[in-house]
Amino acid sequence: MDLYSIARWLSSEYHDLNGTHIDVLEESPTALEFSRLVHISRPVLIRGVQIPSVRLWDDEYLASALGEGEISVAVTPNGRADAVTRGPDGTLYFVEPHIEKMKMAGFLSKLSDETDDSEIYYLQSQNGNVYSNQFFQGTPDPSEFEAIRADIPSEIPWCTATFGKPPDAVNLWIGNHRSVTSIHSDPYENIYTVVRGSKQFTLLPPTEGCCVRERMYPHGTWTRQIPNAALTIAPSPDVPPIRWASVIDPDIPGNLPPDAHPIRITVNEGETLYLPPGWWHYVRQADNTIALNWWYDMEMWGLSWVLLNLLRGVGEVPSGNDASEEVEEN
Amino acid sequence: MDLYSIARWLSSEYHDLNGTHIDVLEESPTALEFSRLVHISRPVLIRGVQIPSVRLWDDEYLASALGEGEISVAVTPNGRADAVTRGPDGTLYFVEPHIEKMKMAGFLSKLSDETDDSEIYYLQSQNGNVYSNQFFQGTPDPSEFEAIRADIPSEIPWCTATFGKPPDAVNLWIGNHRSVTSIHSDPYENIYTVVRGSKQFTLLPPTEGCCVRERMYPHGTWTRQIPNAALTIAPSPDVPPIRWASVIDPDIPGNLPPDAHPIRITVNEGETLYLPPGWWHYVRQADNTIALNWWYDMEMWGLSWVLLNLLRGVGEVPSGNDASEEVEEN
Repeated sequence: MDLYSIARWLSSEYHDLNGTHIDVLEESPTALEFSRLVHISRPVLIRGVQIPSVRLWDDEYLASALGEGEISVAVTPNGRADAVTRGPDGTLYFVEPHIEKMKMAGFLSKLSDETDDSEIYYLQSQNGNVYSNQFFQGTPDPSEFEAIRADIPSEIPWCTATFGKPPDAVNLWIGNHRSVTSIHSDPYENIYTVVRGSKQFTLLPPTEGCCVRERMYPHGTWTRQIPNAALTIAPSPDVPPIRWASVIDPDIPGNLPPDAHPIRITVNEGETLYLPPGWWHYVRQADNTIALNWWYDMEMWGLSWVLLNLLRGVGEVPSGNDASEEVEEN
Repeated sequence: MDLYSIARWLSSEYHDLNGTHIDVLEESPTALEFSRLVHISRPVLIRGVQIPSVRLWDDEYLASALGEGEISVAVTPNGRADAVTRGPDGTLYFVEPHIEKMKMAGFLSKLSDETDDSEIYYLQSQNGNVYSNQFFQGTPDPSEFEAIRADIPSEIPWCTATFGKPPDAVNLWIGNHRSVTSIHSDPYENIYTVVRGSKQFTLLPPTEGCCVRERMYPHGTWTRQIPNAALTIAPSPDVPPIRWASVIDPDIPGNLPPDAHPIRITVNEGETLYLPPGWWHYVRQADNTIALNWWYDMEMWGLSWVLLNLLRGVGEVPSGNDASEEVEEN
């Protein structure tokens, strides 16, 4: 029995026992209830996580609160930051976005300008842009969102109690329907709250990692060769190749193999998704969607970490640019 | 990569990250602390689980409390109930013990009679002999140990709170140094308290299941063909073959492969071992050892159950009686 057959066996057994059902909680769980969900490691949709301060956020408030301060925004011509994209040389690259500094007011007007279809803006800096681990370690933690930090809780009390530690990072995400997050998995416990708008998640359990067909890609960055020029992919010769899913859009029929069991879930305003470590997720959003997420470090002791590494595949990962590999591009 | 290579990879990764250390808690954990231990799924030695009533147990009390009531005791000529043993026909069988009904007083005097080395007695009925799941379902649950039930808590409060359900079974174990429990794993969360004497556990993590080399064995039972005759192995033609470890004594150097990492731990009077599901255990005990255990059903949702099944090996298990299989017998 080879690794691929084992992965298929695991995937099928897991699906037979767990199905594709997602529990919905009307109230926040207690720490003890949440610890059972974490142990099962299934996504759960939680209603009733109350963060009253952020319910007052509108564009005017955000623009005014952040004023002249500059924020880092991802810019791409295709809406796919951190995704596999074919370069002008015909090679597939894992491409990071161009980062542009701008004021919140300018960013929000870019987002809502329906006539401007040249470039796509997405606030997704995801480096602990609201609170990084420096904050939780008690060291200075400057943030571009300092002015609205008071609105954003640094931790979710029942999560911190379950994990016995504060988050590792808290992030703010603002985007529209033109931005997509390519399918990937994180080694984090993720609490994802939609403040405004809605997010559509396409999920695959860790057992179905083989369905996204990870491959190795050279690294590139969307770059302006001269100011105001169009963005082009600049290869990054000094960055090692990146392992990434070769499935670009898992929502297009046929892009996932027939034995994949994707779970599609919409997280609406005021709702929170618990996304356990290792779950693959592809994310789209409605226009004017604002979300917050809290990442807690996953448990490295015990079997889970070792298992997740097994499920991502032991041994060498092939190049995504082999002639034998066909990648759909949409 | 075949299943055996994958098992070895998992075993080595798990060992590199987790080592062979066993945490010792001086006090009982809270439910939330225990839930983190359950999530990690590592054995833990817990001191300070207080069960004052059973600390008063001595032979005289037990004999007197249980009086004329009969209890079911396992009898074997070799001290190995539920173990692989070679029959007179040269075949290896998985052999269950002969069950003899006797009074507690008679059993205890058998246990402490150093001159009687003909047969070995072990109270190990392990069918929920103190409280079975009928008790927890609120249906009548007659027990041979009814008379001392009041001394034995039906549940461990912080375990019940962690798992969100009562135990599935509570058992009393009484034996001496001549009885051994062959290496096996259970699909249960196990809380094991030593009331008197001591137990020596040899443990292997679930990732090292391949080290015990499970094989299929025909079933047999230690039986007296006529009253007072010596015990012989009677094959059970109607019972399907049993899958069991072919390693008889993992404590003898060389019986486990060099890449096994056994953990040896002694649980003394007043101490409690948390043994997570899927951990392989081989158990010996000092003379006059009394123990209690609480089995809670393990979580079947999520990845753990699927993983444990993978680690026990997917596919056909070979017969333990193939000429090519060499089994040490000690």
